[in-house]
Amino acid sequence: MIVSNLYLSLHFIFLRRHIFMVKITFPDNKFKEYPDGVTGLEIAKSIHPGLAKQVLAVTVNGELWDLMRPIHQDAAVIFHKWDDEEGKHAFWHSSAHLMAEAIELLYPGTKFGIGPAIENGFYYDIDPGEDVVITEKDLQKIEQKMQELARSKEVYQRKEVSKEEALDFFNKKGDEYKLELINDLEDGTISFYTQGSFTDLCRGPHLPGTENIKAIKLLNIAGAYWRGDEKRKQLTRIYGITFPKKSMLDEYLVILEEAKKRDHRKIGKELELFTFSQKVGQGLPLWLPKGAQLRERLENFLKIVQKDFGYLPVITPHIGQKELYVTSGHYEKYGKDSFQPIKTPSENEEFLLKPMNCPHHCEIYKSSRRTFRDLPLRLAEFGTVYRYEQSGELHGLTRVRGFTQDDAHIFCRPDQLKSEFLKVIDIIFIIFKALDFKDFLTQISLRDPKDNEKYIGSDENWEKAEAAIIEACKEKGLNTVTEYGEAAFYGPKLDFMVKDALGRKWQLGTIQVDYNLPERFDLEYIGSDDRKHRPVMIHRAPFGSMERFVAVLIEHTAGKFPLWLAPDQVVIMPISEKYVEYAKKVLSFLNNSDIRSLIDDRDEKIGKKIRDNELKKIPYLLIVGEKEVESNSVSVRKQGKGDQGSMSLDEFTAFINEEVEKQMQFSIQKQSTN
Amino acid sequence: MIVSNLYLSLHFIFLRRHIFMVKITFPDNKFKEYPDGVTGLEIAKSIHPGLAKQVLAVTVNGELWDLMRPIHQDAAVIFHKWDDEEGKHAFWHSSAHLMAEAIELLYPGTKFGIGPAIENGFYYDIDPGEDVVITEKDLQKIEQKMQELARSKEVYQRKEVSKEEALDFFNKKGDEYKLELINDLEDGTISFYTQGSFTDLCRGPHLPGTENIKAIKLLNIAGAYWRGDEKRKQLTRIYGITFPKKSMLDEYLVILEEAKKRDHRKIGKELELFTFSQKVGQGLPLWLPKGAQLRERLENFLKIVQKDFGYLPVITPHIGQKELYVTSGHYEKYGKDSFQPIKTPSENEEFLLKPMNCPHHCEIYKSSRRTFRDLPLRLAEFGTVYRYEQSGELHGLTRVRGFTQDDAHIFCRPDQLKSEFLKVIDIIFIIFKALDFKDFLTQISLRDPKDNEKYIGSDENWEKAEAAIIEACKEKGLNTVTEYGEAAFYGPKLDFMVKDALGRKWQLGTIQVDYNLPERFDLEYIGSDDRKHRPVMIHRAPFGSMERFVAVLIEHTAGKFPLWLAPDQVVIMPISEKYVEYAKKVLSFLNNSDIRSLIDDRDEKIGKKIRDNELKKIPYLLIVGEKEVESNSVSVRKQGKGDQGSMSLDEFTAFINEEVEKQMQFSIQKQSTN
Repeated sequence: MIVSNLYLSLHFIFLRRHIFMVKITFPDNKFKEYPDGVTGLEIAKSIHPGLAKQVLAVTVNGELWDLMRPIHQDAAVIFHKWDDEEGKHAFWHSSAHLMAEAIELLYPGTKFGIGPAIENGFYYDIDPGEDVVITEKDLQKIEQKMQELARSKEVYQRKEVSKEEALDFFNKKGDEYKLELINDLEDGTISFYTQGSFTDLCRGPHLPGTENIKAIKLLNIAGAYWRGDEKRKQLTRIYGITFPKKSMLDEYLVILEEAKKRDHRKIGKELELFTFSQKVGQGLPLWLPKGAQLRERLENFLKIVQKDFGYLPVITPHIGQKELYVTSGHYEKYGKDSFQPIKTPSENEEFLLKPMNCPHHCEIYKSSRRTFRDLPLRLAEFGTVYRYEQSGELHGLTRVRGFTQDDAHIFCRPDQLKSEFLKVIDIIFIIFKALDFKDFLTQISLRDPKDNEKYIGSDENWEKAEAAIIEACKEKGLNTVTEYGEAAFYGPKLDFMVKDALGRKWQLGTIQVDYNLPERFDLEYIGSDDRKHRPVMIHRAPFGSMERFVAVLIEHTAGKFPLWLAPDQVVIMPISEKYVEYAKKVLSFLNNSDIRSLIDDRDEKIGKKIRDNELKKIPYLLIVGEKEVESNSVSVRKQGKGDQGSMSLDEFTAFINEEVEKQMQFSIQKQSTN
Repeated sequence: MIVSNLYLSLHFIFLRRHIFMVKITFPDNKFKEYPDGVTGLEIAKSIHPGLAKQVLAVTVNGELWDLMRPIHQDAAVIFHKWDDEEGKHAFWHSSAHLMAEAIELLYPGTKFGIGPAIENGFYYDIDPGEDVVITEKDLQKIEQKMQELARSKEVYQRKEVSKEEALDFFNKKGDEYKLELINDLEDGTISFYTQGSFTDLCRGPHLPGTENIKAIKLLNIAGAYWRGDEKRKQLTRIYGITFPKKSMLDEYLVILEEAKKRDHRKIGKELELFTFSQKVGQGLPLWLPKGAQLRERLENFLKIVQKDFGYLPVITPHIGQKELYVTSGHYEKYGKDSFQPIKTPSENEEFLLKPMNCPHHCEIYKSSRRTFRDLPLRLAEFGTVYRYEQSGELHGLTRVRGFTQDDAHIFCRPDQLKSEFLKVIDIIFIIFKALDFKDFLTQISLRDPKDNEKYIGSDENWEKAEAAIIEACKEKGLNTVTEYGEAAFYGPKLDFMVKDALGRKWQLGTIQVDYNLPERFDLEYIGSDDRKHRPVMIHRAPFGSMERFVAVLIEHTAGKFPLWLAPDQVVIMPISEKYVEYAKKVLSFLNNSDIRSLIDDRDEKIGKKIRDNELKKIPYLLIVGEKEVESNSVSVRKQGKGDQGSMSLDEFTAFINEEVEKQMQFSIQKQSTN
């Protein structure tokens, strides 16, 4: 279709435009005809001028496109606005180009690495040359230049170029980073984008122009190795974020500030929950008493729930012989970027730190003969696993080198998959309720229907498993997103993402079907037909890991844990030294009622004691003075909620116990749990 | 004193014997004079002919001697009878020589490795030559020959020989094993022992003669590498045991049989408590659901006790950086016979599997500023540690490569040592009571008073610590043995040994003072004088390890655990199918009351059901039939104790709960727990 002669080509397009029509289908399956060469923006305008103002990119026959790119064939289109990931992506990617343009104008001769959109904003890795150093102080200047360029309503223009042209352009410009990138590309797939004076190698898509970018904030500056390789040059990475409205930026900056306050590393230190030691090693948390107790409360809660759901606890070692991982298939993947094998005095014997608990649980399954009557067998373990992460990637409790999964493996018959999924969803609901996660999403990851080859397990089993997940989600009324092609090669899965108090998404629980390990470990059960069958495995971890979950919980609650979980539930504050004796009586009464309490007997004014203990996020503050001693009572304040009146000790204990019970209460439908 | 000319020498001895006297001091500090050259046996005879019949060896000035060896100087003597370890040792060591003599007569040309006395009996490693194979079947023949020789009243004769003479003797005999042993010895320290036709290289001591050996049993035969080295020749090891009375052997064989029945590996399998997997690796137990639950009950019990005693839980990783162990001093000792370091992608970073929890706990201590008010700080962790053991040394749960210590480290001021010791002893008492260990010994291990040099820490602190332990034991009325020179270089300690139902001793709890790690980790606290001080550390583990403790518990109880610990507490047995519905009602009632119950609904006679479930060691057996349905009750049988009458469900629940509470009940004197 492509005619190399420019004149002919233009003539041909002109002709098509006036002669041919293309059929455009919308997500609701309605369609409309447009002249050949119509752009996404023109289609949007034809629907509603308001829509045209909001759209940022368009998906054309499954490919993400610029709004200005002409459409020459019948196509299904989906428009993307700010609310979509795709819309934001185009917005921020265009903003990265805008920042590059500003930098090139301010620092001529700068060379450019890559500049992608990320989860929140964008960055560009740049090399401003030997003699130039860009620091935090310079960010405002770049910001201003970006604003100036955005206001000048520059247009993003796409151009497809040959590899030769592309190399020629950047050779002349003298940018070895882009040349290296181009060399890795295939001829016929290369495009450039230009806005104003700046041209970049880019696949797109981009906004029509810069004028949509109304609010700009460059956030920080960091070092980053070219292509992530420590041995190559360190470039300067500048992070930024942009918005179509000034108010959105303001809101974002408030959340950013709030997120800093809620940083679990900061709160974890203040509340003495965990620490790290250089000598023990990076990414290996040490749980301090209050953190260990909090974690134990979480684990015990889940243990009680799991017991009711028919789970059986097991305990396995933190290492396993190489042979175990050869069988499981993990050994093949055990590369140079992992913890290396542990050698022993015996030449042919080496161990690995366990990166997951499943191989051990498979060996437990195998340790006994199993029949259809024994299934489902649900083996649960709070199992600590070790995975090496680069030190630069470690982050508090969310990216660590050792973590404890609230792991369980359900070995079941294929016909039990759906009921097992329903039960695991119930457990996740119980946890979300007890921890006040109200807002969550679920993603169903299925096979790529076009590529059945790459999956292990029979078609029949896959269909059963996928149907089981979909039906279970429907029965539970879950709000799901279905992603085709996102299943693991060994089975489909269901993921839970919670939104925290700041609207940030965190992936927590996972339920994963596995046809692979039962095969590799040759697991069997005797069916009702007296023949051998292969069980299916479900991996599941509602918390995900104790470390990550506690981190999310801290950031979600800003350290104000639900009462049942709070390290200290009650602080008793005598008004003056005279009432310390009575405070001790109250303390002993509460501790005997299993209410975690302490006394603030500092010689301070009661106002200061209230303020200080509110900051310590203790849920209940009890004031005791003359009146309380006389009436054998306490004056109750709730953290952040103020005075709750006076109560006798029995009343207060009942009040606390009721709140705790309400939070932890769960009911399960006793079906046949085994 | 040694005159080489034989005549002169004999003459001299003759003279001494009639001219000189030696002063012999007895353990009660009384003394008596005897002619020079008097033997231990002669002294014993002089005290009482009955004593002479019982003594087996004698300690002369701290050295273990034959009874027939002449004493030429003033000496303190202690006689050893069958009841002492030293007495048994001489008896069994002499028996090993007797077995060797029998083997040499039956299999001429046999070469001999080593033949020591062991905890129960003795063995000899032998090389009967290329063409001869000795099997279990031959043991009886050797036994008979030994009996024959014993009856012939052979005498064990000691002879001191030069290295040259010794080499010459075994060169002529052609025994390369003995030659190798002699080559490692220094001239002037070598002695031979001869009885009948058999001469052996031996330090002694031995019995006067073979006639004391009245009962002989050769137990089994195994392979053993010469000097424990896999690369050297495998010898034949024959184990045996002997006694001064036939009745003692009979009794021993009964206990041996009983011990086999109680073998925790056998019972652990029968009760489905734990298993091992070749793929996971030897010595790495996998706790099956019933075992994991049992272990969790033990851990939870100790957690409750420890909480009341002011312990704070912590959780630390199972690995630590090399630097951690360089600081602790463990790295130096980390030899080729250990799990080897875990390398990582980062060149200068390597980790070790943790062999103990203390270094991690020291880092937690250091993570915060501590003052005298914060002490004692008691950090507790059920911490799993890994130590490599040769595969030949592994044994069920008692010798493993990974085990979980019920570990805690108490950081305290030197003046708090005694009160902390008292509290730890209380905890150990609580555990022994809950688990029905009535018979135990304690050993206090102190410094060698003659060699203060080799210990770390000031004299003053050592004296304080030793006095604290001694006083604490006295206050608690403990039956103690004090061993001088048995303290670790870093502090004195107290060990608890329990005697199980078969009278076997097991070392369990340990309390160990440590001046070393606080020094190495530079631990500090601010004293009331506002100056920096060094805390003392106490390591303590009342169970020792969960693995070992459960093994001991199984062997002690033969799997009949105390009710609070039993995996299944109650089995409900319907008399016929008609009553299964009612049995289910009972089951649900009991399970809701947290009584671990199950139903035996097999279509079997009630007599068989009772027999089978008694074998399963379930503490209570409930029979339900017509009568029980009508009266809404159960007929109660106690395991091994028979019928206990009829009870309503409420009565039975109260009955069970009362027994459990009585077993677990503990009271602590609330002193200042912090």
